[in-house]
Amino acid sequence: MKAEIITIGDEILIGQIVDTNSQWIGTELNKIGVSVYQISSIQDDKQHILNALKEAQERVDIVILTGGLGPTKDDITKKTIAEFFHDDEIVEYPEVLEHIKGLFRKINHPFKEVQRFQAQLPSKATLLMNHFGTAPGMWFYENNTVFVSLPGVPYEMKGLITNQVLPRIQQQFKLPFIIHKTIMTYGQGESTIAERIEDFENNLPIYIKLAYLPSFGKVRLRLSAKGENKEILEKELNEKVAAIYQLIPEIITGLDDDRSLEKRVGELLKKITKRLEPQKV
Amino acid sequence: MKAEIITIGDEILIGQIVDTNSQWIGTELNKIGVSVYQISSIQDDKQHILNALKEAQERVDIVILTGGLGPTKDDITKKTIAEFFHDDEIVEYPEVLEHIKGLFRKINHPFKEVQRFQAQLPSKATLLMNHFGTAPGMWFYENNTVFVSLPGVPYEMKGLITNQVLPRIQQQFKLPFIIHKTIMTYGQGESTIAERIEDFENNLPIYIKLAYLPSFGKVRLRLSAKGENKEILEKELNEKVAAIYQLIPEIITGLDDDRSLEKRVGELLKKITKRLEPQKV
Repeated sequence: MKAEIITIGDEILIGQIVDTNSQWIGTELNKIGVSVYQISSIQDDKQHILNALKEAQERVDIVILTGGLGPTKDDITKKTIAEFFHDDEIVEYPEVLEHIKGLFRKINHPFKEVQRFQAQLPSKATLLMNHFGTAPGMWFYENNTVFVSLPGVPYEMKGLITNQVLPRIQQQFKLPFIIHKTIMTYGQGESTIAERIEDFENNLPIYIKLAYLPSFGKVRLRLSAKGENKEILEKELNEKVAAIYQLIPEIITGLDDDRSLEKRVGELLKKITKRLEPQKV
Repeated sequence: MKAEIITIGDEILIGQIVDTNSQWIGTELNKIGVSVYQISSIQDDKQHILNALKEAQERVDIVILTGGLGPTKDDITKKTIAEFFHDDEIVEYPEVLEHIKGLFRKINHPFKEVQRFQAQLPSKATLLMNHFGTAPGMWFYENNTVFVSLPGVPYEMKGLITNQVLPRIQQQFKLPFIIHKTIMTYGQGESTIAERIEDFENNLPIYIKLAYLPSFGKVRLRLSAKGENKEILEKELNEKVAAIYQLIPEIITGLDDDRSLEKRVGELLKKITKRLEPQKV
């Protein structure tokens, strides 16, 4: 099952913010066995959104859009989504309107007519209620492809993904498991390591992939496995990790969460410090 | 002038890292007047890279690829780029080989034959020497489109962008100026602000755009102007900022770098603290 994440809006494109939404969504999708095939950041522009939706539909099974759902003029996403779904009409959802009015009552602000726009969605949308804000999420299913549209404000987006989008995806599709293990190494270059584990790499089964992730002085080796049976995958991946430990033992500094070399050095220093009683002044 | 940034590799797609490279490149391109039209993160897969290059070529004038240039098996970028440029052949660049050997001499490591692969590039590439690493950058120009391929390691990529790519883009194209000003507000929602500055927004000239960027409790208003004359743009944008200050004075907390409300509160507290002489114990 493959997904594409599309973020709408200039903020990312002009470098004003880093796209942490897509990173978070990617991690969450991975956990339930959905591979992210592509991430695209696009303009808040009708034709650009239409093209992106069309291209994504040809590539993946699940399209997740974030952003472009505010109540102001610069957001044209909803109209564009309606057009994409065969010129669907925009209708008012009374339960959303009631929810928005409730939010405004709670914070003692008068309800403004311009807010009504937030309650208007394409008629074909399955409503995803946003308990943390005024812009609802939307779910569409057409030609075996799921389309989800979510607000870009991170805590609103996260609430919707966790509580509504992921459970629905799990209901809609039979999903495999995807597991990653990352081995941290220090002190040898990518090419040297590649030579040392060449045979190992050539003999990996098709459902286990190895990636080299170099940074200054370090190379991480990421093993990724995909399959139906989580226990078997875990077992096989642990065997592969053990095999790599056999091949390049002296350059490995840790595994996964235990990732940072700095953290390991810190732990070792703490151990020593404990043994050295502090001198009394 | 429009650009697309394409990052190659699974690291971003599985959520292992945040795509800070694209954010940095976006900022730098903006500074020299190039708009980033789209950012795409794709798989390290031949067909996927070919499709992304073809799609980008139809959309933009400048395509910047990062990632996928390591010396190991999992990197197929160079071969794919050669195929994209009409089945170009891969040839060895002696000056790159010499540079790589030099790097290895410097750190007292023996040169490995597998490193020779790094010196092999499509014959149509204009070489961009990478002074911070072994993988060179490449520059192609075809049908009015520039293609740049760079390593994904951030400090190598940044060196190449700053010293080679940006100067070449400025030489190749006549570029406009793009200027942004961001007004920070606190305490009113997007829709309320939109109502208050509706007339102002409707009367903006076509080359000045307004975006609403909401987050918890705050809305940033970003004005962006694009044109040939930097002084005139600066002047006009300052006038627009002044006009917004007139319309919603009581909710504005700062401008641009002066962005963070927390920072402002900190400054105010420091001012007060200075006046309160510390009590001697």
